[in-house]
Amino acid sequence: MTYRHRIRVRYGECDMQGVVFNAHYLAYADDAVAEWLQSALPAGALYVSGNGAATFDFMVKKAVVTWAAGSTFGDVVDLDCSIERWGNTSFDIAAVGTVGGADRFEVILTYVSVRPGTHTPCRVPDDLRSALTG
Amino acid sequence: MTYRHRIRVRYGECDMQGVVFNAHYLAYADDAVAEWLQSALPAGALYVSGNGAATFDFMVKKAVVTWAAGSTFGDVVDLDCSIERWGNTSFDIAAVGTVGGADRFEVILTYVSVRPGTHTPCRVPDDLRSALTG
Amino acid sequence: MTYRHRIRVRYGECDMQGVVFNAHYLAYADDAVAEWLQSALPAGALYVSGNGAATFDFMVKKAVVTWAAGSTFGDVVDLDCSIERWGNTSFDIAAVGTVGGADRFEVILTYVSVRPGTHTPCRVPDDLRSALTG
Amino acid sequence: MTYRHRIRVRYGECDMQGVVFNAHYLAYADDAVAEWLQSALPAGALYVSGNGAATFDFMVKKAVVTWAAGSTFGDVVDLDCSIERWGNTSFDIAAVGTVGGADRFEVILTYVSVRPGTHTPCRVPDDLRSALTG
Repeated sequence: MTYRHRIRVRYGECDMQGVVFNAHYLAYADDAVAEWLQSALPAGALYVSGNGAATFDFMVKKAVVTWAAGSTFGDVVDLDCSIERWGNTSFDIAAVGTVGGADRFEVILTYVSVRPGTHTPCRVPDDLRSALTG
Repeated sequence: MTYRHRIRVRYGECDMQGVVFNAHYLAYADDAVAEWLQSALPAGALYVSGNGAATFDFMVKKAVVTWAAGSTFGDVVDLDCSIERWGNTSFDIAAVGTVGGADRFEVILTYVSVRPGTHTPCRVPDDLRSALTG
Repeated sequence: MTYRHRIRVRYGECDMQGVVFNAHYLAYADDAVAEWLQSALPAGALYVSGNGAATFDFMVKKAVVTWAAGSTFGDVVDLDCSIERWGNTSFDIAAVGTVGGADRFEVILTYVSVRPGTHTPCRVPDDLRSALTG
Repeated sequence: MTYRHRIRVRYGECDMQGVVFNAHYLAYADDAVAEWLQSALPAGALYVSGNGAATFDFMVKKAVVTWAAGSTFGDVVDLDCSIERWGNTSFDIAAVGTVGGADRFEVILTYVSVRPGTHTPCRVPDDLRSALTG
């Protein structure tokens, strides 16, 4: 199962080298994963990260970004997200970034499942797993 | 040789989970490395990344961020930077982030040396190497 | 003539109050204006702000943001842009932000036309004026 | 009573025009005001915006940014904050930005006092008023 999220690069995200400043790629990947989750969960599922009323939540434990080439203003970036690994309390998502089909970057995110309103690890909920596995 | 850079977490950098949003840690590390460079280079050295008149430049090829715990508004973060590896056209810098001496995160950045005004790799300049090796 | 630009709020743009951090609204308005320009200019027009080869450029002189209510993660914001004023070397653009038709914020931006590659004011180019007036 | 807050411009905050991207000036002013508040409040005062346990909170209602000149990487910006107006449920703060004593920008922020954990306006607390009036 793969989820494609599309982002247009904003002018203000590009630095003096004329390419997207490195930190924004993590924001792109985070946005892609958040949209995936919103679209995969059944209507009525109670989930907004950081909301104490959410039924689950998770935090990033590790992020690995590798660039093949920079992206810049005018580029439309496709991020193809997929599950790389399911663990007991953690899981990995890969987001591969392309522009017009050409490789630009890849982000591997390791998430830890936490109890909502806390930063305490807990087992990955079954419904989250099934929602993202399809 | 180690360079310590200090950053106060800004309110607007914290998200709804009450901790610094993940992308900002790359901005912190980038800022630490930029400051290290400015402080290590001899006065009069011509270097501003993205400035065509610079005598050298570099781009990030890979970034690995690992979190031990989140940071939040009110935290004063120390980033201790050091060279992890010198290659021919690339080098790695580690930035270890602590708050009051307690581990919070670590960023490993792989940089590629490029000809100023281009994104073309070139040999790491000797004076950059000696400036950061001390 | 009005240009509508749509932005989905990103999770990382929301702060601990649960709403979009104030600075990001300027980024939204900037993005809306940049997209308007790209869509309004004839194909082949040479324009990327900050690119020395551009045939015109402009900088923000003044920005006034007024909020009716906050926006948050999950909101899809429509920004309706229109020209408020044409001057000799400057012009004003209004970007009105709504979510599902309800008022959220308004940004009034005063731009100064500058010679590309400089920060020197110059007369607003006729083709820019006609492109945005329709 | 005036509060001076100092910010070093970060490389990643500068865009392709070689100056700080406009949205970041609001982030600078927000940071200056937040630091002023933290320094002015008596030790033990319970205040973190967005924290439900805070004894007061406030939101930005209007922001006016006027630029005299751009700032760039390498600049150290001083923001001099002062109260411009006290109302019943709102107040204005001015943050004047200079670099080496030269004017760069000014931000006028209109804040509305709200009950913590809500976005409901309330009377400006007396202790906040006295803390910022000195």
